[in-house]
Amino acid sequence: MPPTGNLQAVQGLSPRDLRRLMRSGEWREPTAGLAPGFAQANLVVVPREAAYDFLLFCQRNPKPCPLIDVTDPGSAEPAYAAPGADLRTDLPKYRVYRHGKLEEEVTEITRHWRPDFVAFLLGCSFTFEGAMQRAGLPVRHIEDGRNASMYVTSLACRPAGALHGPVVVSMRPVPREGVPRAVLVTGRYPRAHGAPLHVGDPGAIGIRDLAHPDFGDPPRIEPGEVPMFWACGVTPQAVARTARVDLMITHAPGHMFVTDLLDEDFAAG
Amino acid sequence: MPPTGNLQAVQGLSPRDLRRLMRSGEWREPTAGLAPGFAQANLVVVPREAAYDFLLFCQRNPKPCPLIDVTDPGSAEPAYAAPGADLRTDLPKYRVYRHGKLEEEVTEITRHWRPDFVAFLLGCSFTFEGAMQRAGLPVRHIEDGRNASMYVTSLACRPAGALHGPVVVSMRPVPREGVPRAVLVTGRYPRAHGAPLHVGDPGAIGIRDLAHPDFGDPPRIEPGEVPMFWACGVTPQAVARTARVDLMITHAPGHMFVTDLLDEDFAAG
Repeated sequence: MPPTGNLQAVQGLSPRDLRRLMRSGEWREPTAGLAPGFAQANLVVVPREAAYDFLLFCQRNPKPCPLIDVTDPGSAEPAYAAPGADLRTDLPKYRVYRHGKLEEEVTEITRHWRPDFVAFLLGCSFTFEGAMQRAGLPVRHIEDGRNASMYVTSLACRPAGALHGPVVVSMRPVPREGVPRAVLVTGRYPRAHGAPLHVGDPGAIGIRDLAHPDFGDPPRIEPGEVPMFWACGVTPQAVARTARVDLMITHAPGHMFVTDLLDEDFAAG
Repeated sequence: MPPTGNLQAVQGLSPRDLRRLMRSGEWREPTAGLAPGFAQANLVVVPREAAYDFLLFCQRNPKPCPLIDVTDPGSAEPAYAAPGADLRTDLPKYRVYRHGKLEEEVTEITRHWRPDFVAFLLGCSFTFEGAMQRAGLPVRHIEDGRNASMYVTSLACRPAGALHGPVVVSMRPVPREGVPRAVLVTGRYPRAHGAPLHVGDPGAIGIRDLAHPDFGDPPRIEPGEVPMFWACGVTPQAVARTARVDLMITHAPGHMFVTDLLDEDFAAG
Protein backbone atom coordinates (compact mmCIF):
# COMPACT_ATOMS: atom_id res chain seq x y z
CA MET A 1 0.00 0.00 0.00
CA PRO A 2 2.00 3.03 -1.20
CA PRO A 3 1.56 6.44 0.37
CA THR A 4 -1.32 8.18 -1.39
CA GLY A 5 -1.32 11.37 0.69
CA ASN A 6 0.63 14.45 -0.24
CA LEU A 7 4.04 13.44 1.11
CA GLN A 8 5.63 16.71 -0.01
CA ALA A 9 3.24 18.70 2.14
CA VAL A 10 4.28 16.89 5.32
CA GLN A 11 8.01 16.47 4.64
CA GLY A 12 9.98 18.07 7.41
CA LEU A 13 7.16 17.94 9.96
CA SER A 14 8.15 16.71 13.41
CA PRO A 15 6.65 13.54 14.86
CA ARG A 16 4.54 15.73 17.15
CA ASP A 17 3.17 17.78 14.27
CA LEU A 18 2.49 14.66 12.23
CA ARG A 19 0.58 13.11 15.12
CA ARG A 20 -1.46 16.32 15.36
CA LEU A 21 -2.46 15.96 11.70
CA MET A 22 -3.49 12.36 12.33
CA ARG A 23 -5.41 13.33 15.46
CA SER A 24 -7.40 15.92 13.50
CA GLY A 25 -8.06 13.46 10.69
CA GLU A 26 -5.99 15.37 8.15
CA TRP A 27 -3.61 12.42 7.53
CA ARG A 28 -5.17 8.98 7.12
CA GLU A 29 -2.53 7.56 4.80
CA PRO A 30 0.38 5.15 5.34
CA THR A 31 3.31 6.53 7.28
CA ALA A 32 6.25 5.22 5.22
CA GLY A 33 8.71 8.04 4.58
CA LEU A 34 7.36 10.37 7.26
CA ALA A 35 9.75 11.99 9.77
CA PRO A 36 12.92 10.27 8.54
CA GLY A 37 15.31 9.37 11.36
CA PHE A 38 12.47 8.95 13.84
CA ALA A 39 11.34 5.43 14.70
CA GLN A 40 7.84 4.23 13.89
CA ALA A 41 6.07 1.49 15.81
CA ASN A 42 3.48 -1.26 15.56
CA LEU A 43 0.50 -0.93 17.95
CA VAL A 44 -1.28 -3.71 19.88
CA VAL A 45 -4.04 -2.95 22.41
CA VAL A 46 -5.59 -5.62 24.66
CA PRO A 47 -7.56 -5.56 27.93
CA ARG A 48 -5.56 -5.78 31.16
CA GLU A 49 -6.70 -9.37 31.77
CA ALA A 50 -4.96 -10.41 28.54
CA ALA A 51 -1.98 -8.08 28.97
CA TYR A 52 0.18 -10.43 31.04
CA ASP A 53 0.01 -13.08 28.36
CA PHE A 54 0.83 -10.56 25.66
CA LEU A 55 3.71 -9.05 27.61
CA LEU A 56 5.12 -12.53 28.19
CA PHE A 57 4.51 -13.39 24.53
CA CYS A 58 6.68 -10.42 23.52
CA GLN A 59 9.39 -11.44 25.97
CA ARG A 60 9.41 -14.96 24.53
CA ASN A 61 9.31 -13.78 20.91
CA PRO A 62 11.55 -10.72 20.78
CA LYS A 63 12.31 -11.01 17.04
CA PRO A 64 8.72 -10.54 15.81
CA CYS A 65 7.63 -8.56 18.90
CA PRO A 66 10.43 -6.19 20.04
CA LEU A 67 8.73 -4.30 22.84
CA ILE A 68 9.37 -0.55 22.93
CA ASP A 69 6.74 0.81 25.31
CA VAL A 70 3.77 -0.37 27.39
CA THR A 71 1.15 2.00 28.79
CA ASP A 72 -0.27 1.81 32.29
CA PRO A 73 -3.78 0.30 32.30
CA GLY A 74 -6.30 2.83 31.00
CA SER A 75 -3.66 5.31 29.86
CA ALA A 76 -3.34 5.95 26.14
CA GLU A 77 -0.11 7.92 26.58
CA PRO A 78 3.16 6.18 25.61
CA ALA A 79 5.19 7.95 28.27
CA TYR A 80 8.54 6.65 27.00
CA ALA A 81 8.09 6.65 23.22
CA ALA A 82 6.12 9.90 22.84
CA PRO A 83 5.14 11.81 25.99
CA GLY A 84 1.90 13.71 25.47
CA ALA A 85 0.75 11.59 22.53
CA ASP A 86 -2.65 9.84 22.51
CA LEU A 87 -2.66 6.33 21.06
CA ARG A 88 -6.46 6.49 20.58
CA THR A 89 -6.22 9.18 17.91
CA ASP A 90 -2.60 9.64 16.83
CA LEU A 91 -2.37 6.84 14.27
CA PRO A 92 -3.89 7.25 10.82
CA LYS A 93 -5.77 3.93 10.81
CA TYR A 94 -6.59 1.07 13.18
CA ARG A 95 -7.88 -2.50 12.96
CA VAL A 96 -10.27 -4.03 15.49
CA TYR A 97 -10.13 -7.82 15.92
CA ARG A 98 -12.85 -9.63 17.88
CA HIS A 99 -12.78 -13.37 18.55
CA GLY A 100 -9.87 -13.62 16.13
CA LYS A 101 -11.66 -11.96 13.23
CA LEU A 102 -10.97 -8.57 11.68
CA GLU A 103 -14.17 -6.66 12.51
CA GLU A 104 -13.50 -3.14 11.28
CA GLU A 105 -10.96 -0.56 10.20
CA VAL A 106 -11.34 2.84 11.84
CA THR A 107 -9.40 6.11 11.95
CA GLU A 108 -9.60 6.55 15.73
CA ILE A 109 -10.49 4.33 18.67
CA THR A 110 -11.78 6.85 21.21
CA ARG A 111 -15.18 5.20 21.36
CA HIS A 112 -13.61 1.71 21.61
CA TRP A 113 -11.30 2.70 24.46
CA ARG A 114 -11.86 1.16 27.90
CA PRO A 115 -10.34 1.97 31.30
CA ASP A 116 -8.74 -1.50 31.39
CA PHE A 117 -6.94 -1.22 28.04
CA VAL A 118 -3.16 -1.62 27.83
CA ALA A 119 -1.30 -0.49 24.72
CA PHE A 120 1.94 -2.01 23.45
CA LEU A 121 4.32 -0.45 20.93
CA LEU A 122 6.65 -2.75 18.97
CA GLY A 123 9.64 -1.77 16.81
CA CYS A 124 9.03 -1.58 13.07
CA SER A 125 10.95 -2.63 9.95
CA PHE A 126 11.04 0.96 8.68
CA THR A 127 13.96 1.43 11.08
CA PHE A 128 16.17 -1.22 9.51
CA GLU A 129 15.02 -0.43 5.96
CA GLY A 130 16.41 3.07 6.40
CA ALA A 131 19.68 1.55 7.58
CA MET A 132 19.76 -0.78 4.54
CA GLN A 133 19.29 2.16 2.21
CA ARG A 134 22.03 4.16 3.90
CA ALA A 135 24.28 1.09 3.44
CA GLY A 136 23.60 1.08 -0.31
CA LEU A 137 21.35 -2.00 -0.24
CA PRO A 138 18.19 -2.01 -2.35
CA VAL A 139 14.80 -2.07 -0.62
CA ARG A 140 12.73 -3.17 -3.56
CA HIS A 141 9.22 -2.50 -2.29
CA ILE A 142 10.17 1.09 -1.42
CA GLU A 143 11.76 1.56 -4.87
CA ASP A 144 8.51 0.26 -6.37
CA GLY A 145 6.24 2.33 -4.12
CA ARG A 146 4.61 -0.81 -2.77
CA ASN A 147 4.15 -2.53 0.58
CA ALA A 148 6.55 -5.30 1.68
CA SER A 149 5.57 -8.93 1.00
CA MET A 150 4.62 -10.74 4.21
CA TYR A 151 4.13 -14.47 4.76
CA VAL A 152 2.81 -16.77 7.46
CA THR A 153 5.57 -19.34 8.10
CA SER A 154 5.72 -22.86 9.49
CA LEU A 155 7.81 -21.51 12.40
CA ALA A 156 5.83 -21.45 15.65
CA CYS A 157 6.09 -18.61 18.13
CA ARG A 158 6.90 -19.69 21.68
CA PRO A 159 3.43 -19.74 23.29
CA ALA A 160 2.55 -17.63 26.35
CA GLY A 161 -0.62 -18.45 28.28
CA ALA A 162 -3.50 -18.42 25.81
CA LEU A 163 -1.43 -16.94 22.99
CA HIS A 164 0.08 -19.05 20.24
CA GLY A 165 0.52 -18.86 16.51
CA PRO A 166 2.95 -18.76 13.60
CA VAL A 167 5.78 -16.34 13.02
CA VAL A 168 5.00 -13.91 10.21
CA VAL A 169 7.97 -12.70 8.15
CA SER A 170 8.53 -9.89 5.69
CA MET A 171 10.68 -10.64 2.65
CA ARG A 172 13.18 -8.41 0.85
CA PRO A 173 15.18 -9.63 -2.16
CA VAL A 174 18.87 -8.73 -1.91
CA PRO A 175 21.63 -9.20 -4.53
CA ARG A 176 23.67 -12.27 -3.60
CA GLU A 177 26.80 -10.24 -2.83
CA GLY A 178 24.81 -7.98 -0.48
CA VAL A 179 23.51 -10.73 1.79
CA PRO A 180 26.22 -10.57 4.50
CA ARG A 181 25.98 -6.77 4.62
CA ALA A 182 22.19 -6.93 4.93
CA VAL A 183 22.54 -9.33 7.88
CA LEU A 184 25.07 -7.08 9.63
CA VAL A 185 23.26 -3.82 9.00
CA THR A 186 19.85 -5.02 10.18
CA GLY A 187 21.40 -6.97 13.06
CA ARG A 188 22.38 -3.63 14.58
CA TYR A 189 18.69 -3.00 15.41
CA PRO A 190 17.46 -5.77 17.73
CA ARG A 191 14.57 -3.54 18.84
CA ALA A 192 13.39 -3.35 15.22
CA HIS A 193 13.37 -7.11 14.41
CA GLY A 194 17.18 -7.29 14.07
CA ALA A 195 18.96 -9.74 11.79
CA PRO A 196 16.88 -11.89 9.43
CA LEU A 197 15.36 -15.16 10.63
CA HIS A 198 16.13 -16.94 7.40
CA VAL A 199 18.04 -16.47 4.14
CA GLY A 200 17.24 -18.34 0.93
CA ASP A 201 14.87 -21.24 0.24
CA PRO A 202 11.33 -20.09 1.13
CA GLY A 203 10.19 -23.72 1.44
CA ALA A 204 12.50 -24.23 4.42
CA ILE A 205 10.20 -22.05 6.53
CA GLY A 206 6.96 -23.28 4.98
CA ILE A 207 6.41 -20.61 2.34
CA ARG A 208 5.01 -22.29 -0.78
CA ASP A 209 4.83 -19.44 -3.25
CA LEU A 210 6.59 -16.11 -2.93
CA ALA A 211 4.24 -14.66 -5.56
CA HIS A 212 1.28 -14.96 -3.19
CA PRO A 213 2.04 -13.21 0.10
CA ASP A 214 -0.40 -13.44 3.01
CA PHE A 215 -0.12 -9.70 3.68
CA GLY A 216 1.16 -6.80 1.58
CA ASP A 217 2.02 -6.78 -2.11
CA PRO A 218 3.60 -9.47 -4.35
CA PRO A 219 7.37 -9.02 -4.68
CA ARG A 220 9.56 -8.32 -7.68
CA ILE A 221 12.68 -10.50 -7.54
CA GLU A 222 15.49 -10.04 -10.07
CA PRO A 223 17.98 -12.69 -11.27
CA GLY A 224 20.88 -13.10 -8.83
CA GLU A 225 18.83 -11.93 -5.88
CA VAL A 226 18.29 -13.95 -2.71
CA PRO A 227 15.06 -13.73 -0.70
CA MET A 228 15.79 -12.66 2.89
CA PHE A 229 13.18 -13.04 5.62
CA TRP A 230 12.81 -10.88 8.73
CA ALA A 231 10.45 -11.45 11.66
CA CYS A 232 7.48 -9.13 11.22
CA GLY A 233 5.35 -6.98 13.52
CA VAL A 234 2.20 -8.34 11.88
CA THR A 235 2.78 -11.54 13.90
CA PRO A 236 0.41 -10.43 16.72
CA GLN A 237 -2.41 -10.12 14.18
CA ALA A 238 -1.78 -13.71 13.05
CA VAL A 239 -1.75 -14.75 16.72
CA ALA A 240 -5.08 -12.94 17.29
CA ARG A 241 -6.53 -15.09 14.51
CA THR A 242 -4.93 -18.39 15.49
CA ALA A 243 -5.62 -18.08 19.22
CA ARG A 244 -9.05 -16.48 18.62
CA VAL A 245 -8.19 -13.59 20.93
CA ASP A 246 -11.37 -11.98 22.34
CA LEU A 247 -10.37 -8.41 21.60
CA MET A 248 -7.25 -6.87 20.07
CA ILE A 249 -6.85 -3.50 18.41
CA THR A 250 -3.84 -2.88 16.17
CA HIS A 251 -2.59 -0.31 13.68
CA ALA A 252 -3.66 -0.96 10.10
CA PRO A 253 -0.72 -2.38 8.09
CA GLY A 254 1.60 0.44 7.01
CA HIS A 255 -0.26 2.99 9.16
CA MET A 256 2.19 3.10 12.03
CA PHE A 257 2.65 5.20 15.16
CA VAL A 258 5.35 7.87 14.67
CA THR A 259 7.36 8.04 17.91
CA ASP A 260 9.67 10.74 19.28
CA LEU A 261 12.44 8.12 19.52
CA LEU A 262 15.26 7.94 16.99
CA ASP A 263 15.88 4.92 14.79
CA GLU A 264 19.22 4.74 16.61
CA ASP A 265 17.37 4.25 19.90
CA PHE A 266 16.38 0.84 18.51
CA ALA A 267 20.02 -0.17 17.99
CA ALA A 268 21.88 -2.40 20.41
CA GLY A 269 24.20 -1.02 23.05
CA MET B 1 32.60 -13.39 48.03
CA PRO B 2 35.28 -15.53 46.36
CA PRO B 3 34.60 -19.16 45.52
CA THR B 4 35.49 -21.26 48.52
CA GLY B 5 34.51 -24.64 47.07
CA ASN B 6 36.90 -26.91 45.29
CA LEU B 7 36.81 -25.30 41.86
CA GLN B 8 39.28 -27.83 40.43
CA ALA B 9 36.95 -30.69 41.24
CA VAL B 10 34.10 -29.23 39.20
CA GLN B 11 36.09 -27.74 36.30
CA GLY B 12 34.85 -29.23 33.06
CA LEU B 13 31.46 -30.24 34.41
CA SER B 14 28.50 -29.39 32.19
CA PRO B 15 25.80 -27.00 33.37
CA ARG B 16 23.50 -30.00 33.86
CA ASP B 17 26.03 -31.85 36.03
CA LEU B 18 26.75 -28.71 38.03
CA ARG B 19 23.03 -28.19 38.68
CA ARG B 20 22.82 -31.80 39.85
CA LEU B 21 25.57 -31.12 42.43
CA MET B 22 23.66 -28.06 43.63
CA ARG B 23 20.40 -29.99 43.77
CA SER B 24 21.99 -32.65 45.96
CA GLY B 25 23.56 -29.99 48.20
CA GLU B 26 27.12 -30.89 47.21
CA TRP B 27 27.86 -27.38 45.87
CA ARG B 28 26.67 -24.41 47.97
CA GLU B 29 29.43 -21.99 46.91
CA PRO B 30 29.50 -19.04 44.50
CA THR B 31 29.30 -19.94 40.83
CA ALA B 32 31.95 -17.60 39.37
CA GLY B 33 34.23 -19.53 37.03
CA LEU B 34 31.92 -22.54 36.66
CA ALA B 35 31.09 -23.90 33.19
CA PRO B 36 33.01 -21.25 31.21
CA GLY B 37 31.25 -20.26 27.98
CA PHE B 38 27.82 -20.98 29.45
CA ALA B 39 25.71 -18.07 30.61
CA GLN B 40 24.70 -17.68 34.24
CA ALA B 41 21.58 -15.83 35.38
CA ASN B 42 20.06 -13.83 38.22
CA LEU B 43 16.86 -15.31 39.72
CA VAL B 44 13.75 -13.44 40.86
CA VAL B 45 10.61 -15.28 42.03
CA VAL B 46 7.32 -13.51 42.82
CA PRO B 47 3.67 -14.60 43.11
CA ARG B 48 1.58 -14.39 39.93
CA GLU B 49 -0.35 -11.38 41.25
CA ALA B 50 2.92 -9.42 41.32
CA ALA B 51 4.33 -10.94 38.14
CA TYR B 52 2.76 -8.49 35.68
CA ASP B 53 4.37 -5.56 37.46
CA PHE B 54 7.73 -7.32 37.55
CA LEU B 55 7.54 -8.34 33.89
CA LEU B 56 6.69 -4.74 32.96
CA PHE B 57 9.46 -3.49 35.26
CA CYS B 58 11.97 -5.60 33.32
CA GLN B 59 10.62 -4.32 30.00
CA ARG B 60 11.01 -0.74 31.20
CA ASN B 61 14.45 -1.29 32.72
CA PRO B 62 16.24 -3.62 30.32
CA LYS B 63 19.76 -2.55 31.35
CA PRO B 64 19.54 -3.69 35.00
CA CYS B 65 16.90 -6.37 34.24
CA PRO B 66 17.63 -8.10 30.89
CA LEU B 67 14.98 -10.79 30.83
CA ILE B 68 16.12 -14.22 29.62
CA ASP B 69 13.33 -16.58 30.65
CA VAL B 70 10.01 -16.55 32.53
CA THR B 71 8.35 -19.71 33.82
CA ASP B 72 4.65 -20.48 33.56
CA PRO B 73 2.86 -19.93 36.89
CA GLY B 74 3.66 -22.77 39.29
CA SER B 75 6.34 -24.26 37.08
CA ALA B 76 9.92 -24.20 38.35
CA GLU B 77 11.32 -25.32 34.99
CA PRO B 78 13.02 -22.67 32.84
CA ALA B 79 11.95 -24.26 29.56
CA TYR B 80 14.07 -21.96 27.41
CA ALA B 81 17.21 -21.47 29.47
CA ALA B 82 17.61 -25.00 30.87
CA PRO B 83 14.93 -27.57 30.00
CA GLY B 84 14.59 -30.13 32.79
CA ALA B 85 16.17 -27.93 35.46
CA ASP B 86 14.38 -27.13 38.73
CA LEU B 87 14.75 -23.54 39.96
CA ARG B 88 13.70 -24.58 43.49
CA THR B 89 16.84 -26.65 44.04
CA ASP B 90 19.35 -25.99 41.27
CA LEU B 91 20.98 -22.84 42.65
CA PRO B 92 23.52 -23.05 45.49
CA LYS B 93 21.91 -20.37 47.66
CA TYR B 94 18.76 -18.24 47.80
CA ARG B 95 17.51 -15.15 49.60
CA VAL B 96 13.93 -14.72 50.80
CA TYR B 97 12.62 -11.14 51.10
CA ARG B 98 9.34 -10.43 52.91
CA HIS B 99 7.82 -6.96 53.14
CA GLY B 100 11.05 -5.56 51.72
CA LYS B 101 13.30 -7.15 54.32
CA LEU B 102 15.83 -9.95 53.86
CA GLU B 103 14.31 -12.72 55.97
CA GLU B 104 16.58 -15.69 55.39
CA GLU B 105 19.22 -17.32 53.22
CA VAL B 106 18.49 -20.93 52.27
CA THR B 107 20.02 -23.58 50.02
CA GLU B 108 16.74 -24.67 48.41
CA ILE B 109 13.21 -23.25 48.25
CA THR B 110 11.11 -26.39 47.85
CA ARG B 111 9.18 -25.69 51.05
CA HIS B 112 8.70 -22.03 50.09
CA TRP B 113 7.37 -22.84 46.62
CA ARG B 114 3.72 -22.08 45.84
CA PRO B 115 1.56 -23.03 42.86
CA ASP B 116 1.21 -19.34 41.95
CA PHE B 117 4.94 -18.58 41.82
CA VAL B 118 6.53 -17.22 38.64
CA ALA B 119 10.31 -17.31 38.20
CA PHE B 120 12.31 -14.81 36.16
CA LEU B 121 15.88 -15.27 34.94
CA LEU B 122 17.94 -12.17 34.14
CA GLY B 123 21.28 -11.99 32.32
CA CYS B 124 24.39 -11.71 34.50
CA SER B 125 27.61 -9.70 34.36
CA PHE B 126 29.72 -12.89 34.29
CA THR B 127 28.88 -12.98 30.56
CA PHE B 128 30.47 -9.63 29.76
CA GLU B 129 33.34 -10.11 32.21
CA GLY B 130 34.42 -13.16 30.23
CA ALA B 131 34.29 -11.08 27.07
CA MET B 132 36.40 -8.33 28.73
CA GLN B 133 39.02 -10.88 29.72
CA ARG B 134 39.12 -12.35 26.21
CA ALA B 135 39.64 -8.79 24.95
CA GLY B 136 42.66 -8.33 27.22
CA LEU B 137 40.93 -6.00 29.66
CA PRO B 138 41.52 -6.45 33.39
CA VAL B 139 38.63 -7.54 35.61
CA ARG B 140 40.10 -6.53 38.92
CA HIS B 141 37.75 -8.28 41.35
CA ILE B 142 38.29 -11.59 39.53
CA GLU B 143 42.07 -11.09 39.60
CA ASP B 144 41.76 -10.42 43.34
CA GLY B 145 39.40 -13.33 44.02
CA ARG B 146 36.77 -10.97 45.34
CA ASN B 147 33.20 -9.99 44.54
CA ALA B 148 32.48 -6.94 42.36
CA SER B 149 31.74 -3.60 44.10
CA MET B 150 28.07 -2.66 43.80
CA TYR B 151 26.44 0.68 44.58
CA VAL B 152 22.93 2.09 44.91
CA THR B 153 22.80 5.15 42.60
CA SER B 154 20.71 8.31 42.42
CA LEU B 155 19.36 7.08 39.07
CA ALA B 156 15.73 5.97 39.35
CA CYS B 157 14.38 2.91 37.57
CA ARG B 158 11.31 3.57 35.44
CA PRO B 159 8.49 2.48 37.78
CA ALA B 160 5.98 -0.25 36.87
CA GLY B 161 2.81 -0.57 38.93
CA ALA B 162 3.84 -0.96 42.57
CA LEU B 163 7.53 -1.36 41.74
CA HIS B 164 10.01 1.49 41.98
CA GLY B 165 13.51 2.03 43.23
CA PRO B 166 17.06 3.02 42.38
CA VAL B 167 19.32 1.53 39.74
CA VAL B 168 22.12 -0.53 41.30
CA VAL B 169 25.42 -0.59 39.40
CA SER B 170 28.53 -2.71 39.57
CA MET B 171 31.88 -0.95 39.15
CA ARG B 172 35.03 -2.13 37.40
CA PRO B 173 38.16 0.02 37.18
CA VAL B 174 39.64 0.07 33.66
CA PRO B 175 42.92 1.66 32.48
CA ARG B 176 42.14 4.96 30.76
CA GLU B 177 43.23 3.70 27.35
CA GLY B 178 40.97 0.63 27.67
CA VAL B 179 37.73 2.55 28.25
CA PRO B 180 36.46 2.64 24.64
CA ARG B 181 37.23 -1.06 24.18
CA ALA B 182 35.40 -1.92 27.41
CA VAL B 183 32.34 -0.01 26.16
CA LEU B 184 32.39 -1.79 22.80
CA VAL B 185 33.07 -5.27 24.15
CA THR B 186 30.35 -5.20 26.81
CA GLY B 187 27.93 -3.39 24.48
CA ARG B 188 27.85 -6.58 22.41
CA TYR B 189 25.82 -8.27 25.19
CA PRO B 190 22.59 -6.31 25.69
CA ARG B 191 21.02 -9.35 27.38
CA ALA B 192 23.78 -9.25 30.01
CA HIS B 193 23.51 -5.54 30.97
CA GLY B 194 25.29 -4.34 27.79
CA ALA B 195 27.39 -1.18 27.64
CA PRO B 196 28.07 0.72 30.87
CA LEU B 197 25.56 3.25 32.17
CA HIS B 198 28.24 5.67 33.24
CA VAL B 199 32.00 6.25 32.93
CA GLY B 200 34.03 8.35 35.36
CA ASP B 201 32.94 10.62 38.24
CA PRO B 202 31.05 8.48 40.77
CA GLY B 203 29.37 11.58 42.20
CA ALA B 204 27.54 12.17 38.92
CA ILE B 205 25.33 9.15 39.66
CA GLY B 206 25.08 9.77 43.39
CA ILE B 207 27.89 7.52 44.64
CA ARG B 208 29.65 9.29 47.52
CA ASP B 209 32.48 6.92 48.33
CA LEU B 210 33.75 4.12 46.09
CA ALA B 211 35.51 2.58 49.10
CA HIS B 212 32.16 1.73 50.71
CA PRO B 213 30.03 -0.29 48.29
CA ASP B 214 26.42 -1.17 49.20
CA PHE B 215 26.91 -4.78 48.07
CA GLY B 216 30.01 -6.86 47.40
CA ASP B 217 33.62 -6.06 48.29
CA PRO B 218 35.52 -2.72 48.31
CA PRO B 219 37.43 -2.14 45.07
CA ARG B 220 41.11 -1.75 44.37
CA ILE B 221 41.68 1.10 41.90
CA GLU B 222 45.14 1.78 40.49
CA PRO B 223 46.51 5.13 39.27
CA GLY B 224 45.43 5.86 35.69
CA GLU B 225 42.29 3.74 35.98
CA VAL B 226 38.78 5.03 35.36
CA PRO B 227 35.76 3.65 37.27
CA MET B 228 33.18 2.24 34.86
CA PHE B 229 29.64 1.49 36.00
CA TRP B 230 27.32 -1.17 34.59
CA ALA B 231 23.65 -1.72 35.45
CA CYS B 232 23.45 -4.62 37.89
CA GLY B 233 21.13 -7.59 38.40
CA VAL B 234 20.98 -6.82 42.13
CA THR B 235 18.60 -3.96 41.23
CA PRO B 236 15.45 -6.08 41.89
CA GLN B 237 16.66 -6.68 45.45
CA ALA B 238 16.96 -2.90 45.97
CA VAL B 239 13.48 -2.53 44.48
CA ALA B 240 12.13 -5.17 46.87
CA ARG B 241 13.44 -3.05 49.75
CA THR B 242 12.36 0.35 48.42
CA ALA B 243 8.89 -0.74 47.30
CA ARG B 244 8.45 -3.06 50.34
CA VAL B 245 7.51 -5.97 48.08
CA ASP B 246 5.40 -8.54 49.98
CA LEU B 247 7.40 -11.56 48.84
CA MET B 248 10.38 -11.98 46.55
CA ILE B 249 12.86 -14.83 46.40
CA THR B 250 16.19 -14.28 44.65
CA HIS B 251 19.56 -15.99 44.25
CA ALA B 252 22.11 -15.06 46.91
CA PRO B 253 24.69 -12.63 45.43
CA GLY B 254 27.28 -14.54 43.42
CA HIS B 255 25.30 -17.79 43.69
CA MET B 256 23.79 -17.74 40.21
CA PHE B 257 21.77 -20.15 38.09
CA VAL B 258 23.96 -21.91 35.51
CA THR B 259 21.96 -22.10 32.26
CA ASP B 260 22.38 -24.29 29.19
CA LEU B 261 22.59 -21.13 27.05
CA LEU B 262 25.90 -19.82 25.74
CA ASP B 263 27.28 -16.43 26.66
CA GLU B 264 26.99 -15.70 22.94
CA ASP B 265 23.21 -16.24 23.18
CA PHE B 266 23.16 -13.02 25.22
CA ALA B 267 24.82 -11.03 22.40
CA ALA B 268 22.85 -8.80 20.06
CA GLY B 269 21.80 -9.93 16.58
